[in-house]
Amino acid sequence: MASLMLTVSTSPLIHPSIRNNAFMPRRCIDQIHLHTTPSIRGCTLSVRSSSSPDTGFTRIDGNKEAKSIRDEIKIEVSRMDASIHVVPGLAVILEDLQRGSFYPWNPCSVASTIAINPKKDVDGFHPQNMGLLAMRGREPDFVPCTPKGCIELLHRYNVEVEGKRAVVIGRSNIVGMPVAHLLQNEDATVTTIHSKTKNPEEIAREADILIAAAGQPNMVRGSWIKPGAVVIDVGINHIEDPSAPRGRRLVGDVCYQEACKVASAITPVPGGVGPMTIAMLLSNTLTSAKRIHEFE
Amino acid sequence: MASLMLTVSTSPLIHPSIRNNAFMPRRCIDQIHLHTTPSIRGCTLSVRSSSSPDTGFTRIDGNKEAKSIRDEIKIEVSRMDASIHVVPGLAVILEDLQRGSFYPWNPCSVASTIAINPKKDVDGFHPQNMGLLAMRGREPDFVPCTPKGCIELLHRYNVEVEGKRAVVIGRSNIVGMPVAHLLQNEDATVTTIHSKTKNPEEIAREADILIAAAGQPNMVRGSWIKPGAVVIDVGINHIEDPSAPRGRRLVGDVCYQEACKVASAITPVPGGVGPMTIAMLLSNTLTSAKRIHEFE
Repeated sequence: MASLMLTVSTSPLIHPSIRNNAFMPRRCIDQIHLHTTPSIRGCTLSVRSSSSPDTGFTRIDGNKEAKSIRDEIKIEVSRMDASIHVVPGLAVILEDLQRGSFYPWNPCSVASTIAINPKKDVDGFHPQNMGLLAMRGREPDFVPCTPKGCIELLHRYNVEVEGKRAVVIGRSNIVGMPVAHLLQNEDATVTTIHSKTKNPEEIAREADILIAAAGQPNMVRGSWIKPGAVVIDVGINHIEDPSAPRGRRLVGDVCYQEACKVASAITPVPGGVGPMTIAMLLSNTLTSAKRIHEFE
Repeated sequence: MASLMLTVSTSPLIHPSIRNNAFMPRRCIDQIHLHTTPSIRGCTLSVRSSSSPDTGFTRIDGNKEAKSIRDEIKIEVSRMDASIHVVPGLAVILEDLQRGSFYPWNPCSVASTIAINPKKDVDGFHPQNMGLLAMRGREPDFVPCTPKGCIELLHRYNVEVEGKRAVVIGRSNIVGMPVAHLLQNEDATVTTIHSKTKNPEEIAREADILIAAAGQPNMVRGSWIKPGAVVIDVGINHIEDPSAPRGRRLVGDVCYQEACKVASAITPVPGGVGPMTIAMLLSNTLTSAKRIHEFE
């Protein structure tokens, strides 16, 4: 039995009953008290650890949703084990790479990415899967885990995507580019901003849905956010903080303390997108194993 | 000898001496006299047949640029023929398809697109090439011909792309999606609008570079265009016109007569992107033949 366990296929993760009800962004009552400064580092770093409905925003709880997904996965894995005595894992991919004499191998190299069979590409990074994701009317074998986790959070929190303005900050292959395609595939109108964009703050403020994936700690201040927007913070940045136990603290790309005064909903860091990425990798791996073993 | 002839590889098609000088969009002197109506069909269809500097806009001449490219191609083909007695053509691709028993075949089908070797995919439609085009730091073997022709026109008319707002109207696999990636790869800030976009006119008006690829005759009126913008019209629409010799007339997605009063530069239809598409197919086919025969 392989070590890594997995989840149900994509559709059971999405709740049609929730998705059919439109999410109505709320206007934050205390937005007029927001004071921002141009300094990126000036953002206070403390993050509220719990949801608080009376403060006018929803804290999108990635830990809770990821736990729910992992529970679904456990049921599926048990069912697969009991039925055909298979517990899915990453071994299939390692086998492929070793068979192609890519051992010792670098999993991020161009050669090993293309060497992976797209049908077993649970990371979703094979160029063929990227192309199928970008193309209309086509479906990739797998969607990259972090972007898939972002969209899953939007679904689970009943955020309407169709016809909304979405702005993606960052154009990386593993987050920015694929999440832009996922949003566009759901009929959002998407703008991607990046290091060469001249007025990122102004463009970000047009977004009903703002995805921050730039890798810049606390870059997105309150003034970047349209009142009532939904904000997904993909950033995982370690910054120095002498008051923290290890002298470092984990922060996102969004200044949470300012953002939660403007946004209608936001993911914290940690506890937002991070656990969803892991859950989506498990989901993709289960899907792969089900396909290989023709198990439904 | 095969029937279809081809062009030089990409780099000689782009003139560094031109590209290094920034294109400065001019403010159209008569823009304040523009009157638009909400009716799409109300656009007068006549297209000025020549450039006219005194009217304040540049007519981007696709016929002239395509001719220049074809001349370069002829030289390269002659050089290849004289040196290794090979004239490139499409036969290599047909051979591939026939070998895979895709005969009789539909060149647009999913199966035949994936069956083509990505290294011989002169249309650039293979999902792997689409993925490599979408990914940062990766290069597709071939770029689709119409999007490549659009970018080539921007280069040849010295249009600065880096840091500019670009809006692509339409998200098709053969034009909208790949041209958005080409623009983003050149550091434009790109928004793609489509049938589900709620305020397309307002978003289009933000564009310094506007690419119309919706397949809707005369959809883009003068009021959609930011003064001084560069407009590339990819539309090829046949509409009824009793006054035309055959009762039909070819028009683009842009109402040219209105657009040329606002834009700083615009492609006509016909005579804009169309001939560039053919030139780029020749270019890709020559590139393919050079690679196969290791000819430089």
